[in-house]
Amino acid sequence: MMAHDPITSLISLLSRLPGIGERTAARLAFYILEQDAQYAEALGHALTTIHDEVTRCELCGNYGGEARCAICQDPRRDESVICVVAKVPDLMALESLGTFRGRYHVLHGLLAPLDGVGPDQLPLDALERRVADERVKEIIIATPLSVEGEATALYLADALASSPVRVSRIAAGVPHGGELEFTDQVTLSRAIEDRRAVR
Amino acid sequence: MMAHDPITSLISLLSRLPGIGERTAARLAFYILEQDAQYAEALGHALTTIHDEVTRCELCGNYGGEARCAICQDPRRDESVICVVAKVPDLMALESLGTFRGRYHVLHGLLAPLDGVGPDQLPLDALERRVADERVKEIIIATPLSVEGEATALYLADALASSPVRVSRIAAGVPHGGELEFTDQVTLSRAIEDRRAVR
Repeated sequence: MMAHDPITSLISLLSRLPGIGERTAARLAFYILEQDAQYAEALGHALTTIHDEVTRCELCGNYGGEARCAICQDPRRDESVICVVAKVPDLMALESLGTFRGRYHVLHGLLAPLDGVGPDQLPLDALERRVADERVKEIIIATPLSVEGEATALYLADALASSPVRVSRIAAGVPHGGELEFTDQVTLSRAIEDRRAVR
Repeated sequence: MMAHDPITSLISLLSRLPGIGERTAARLAFYILEQDAQYAEALGHALTTIHDEVTRCELCGNYGGEARCAICQDPRRDESVICVVAKVPDLMALESLGTFRGRYHVLHGLLAPLDGVGPDQLPLDALERRVADERVKEIIIATPLSVEGEATALYLADALASSPVRVSRIAAGVPHGGELEFTDQVTLSRAIEDRRAVR
């Protein structure tokens, strides 16, 4: 074994990334070493500066380079609707539709009591303050349909129960193109329960 | 789409890594953003400095922090046998056996005419110089058994034909635990061809 420290420590840092095991990390490290130094330096610089250049919007938690993100700064966005999401990639998925014109509130997490994430670890106070301060009429809870996403949605709905704001939850059901034959029982049950009238 | 530049450029740099597509790169970038800044800075620093801290051994091409690698500096290593490998991870795999006591020569590549890698792009002159200068008795060609590895092995054997040194190639055959039923035809043919006498 060639146990040269800088390589070993690069491999160990890379293997902390999600989905990157020790073997993949080693493959990446050796790939980086075989490339021009320019690439490693560019990636290194991007990483070293990313946390300074990207900050969380003080209002909604979305990423941006200023105190407020591009969406919160945009006067054309409807401030009466707030869509609550677990993470920025979820916000980006919704933005890619180009149809939602409201604003967001990014939790940067979900309730996970077993991992020590309770209501205090999520920016729920900030959300309640936005509901109180602004002319908010509806909160759309768009946390994932997972156990943690559902638990967080339930908690939020409870927390907002005394507020006059409308609280909604994204629909659960059979996904587009989905075969009933291959759909799990929970999804099927929800699809039946939440059926909508067609005439 | 939130097209914030530092995130986009980090994603684009990450997606140049082998096996990391655009989606995985985005997942990694957002993971990094959700961690403490300390992690991104440590990884960034490791990348920025890796090419300065890790150099190629002037003799064999193995990685090390000095002009000569640990193996070339080790007086207990047998200088009469040189094992030629395509890349440092292959050297490490052989070292992990703990049985090979010779030295190495790392090509950092293989002949690949279609990708513009000809004999001039590989440190073959350096190998021939080692064969001439040192008390080398055997060259073991341990390039992979792939098309490029085999082509490189053939080229090397030819190039060394006029030298008095012994040239050998690692054995091709059915791997340990391999079922003949599921072994490809080329491997099976080589296993029959290269059969060894057992009594």
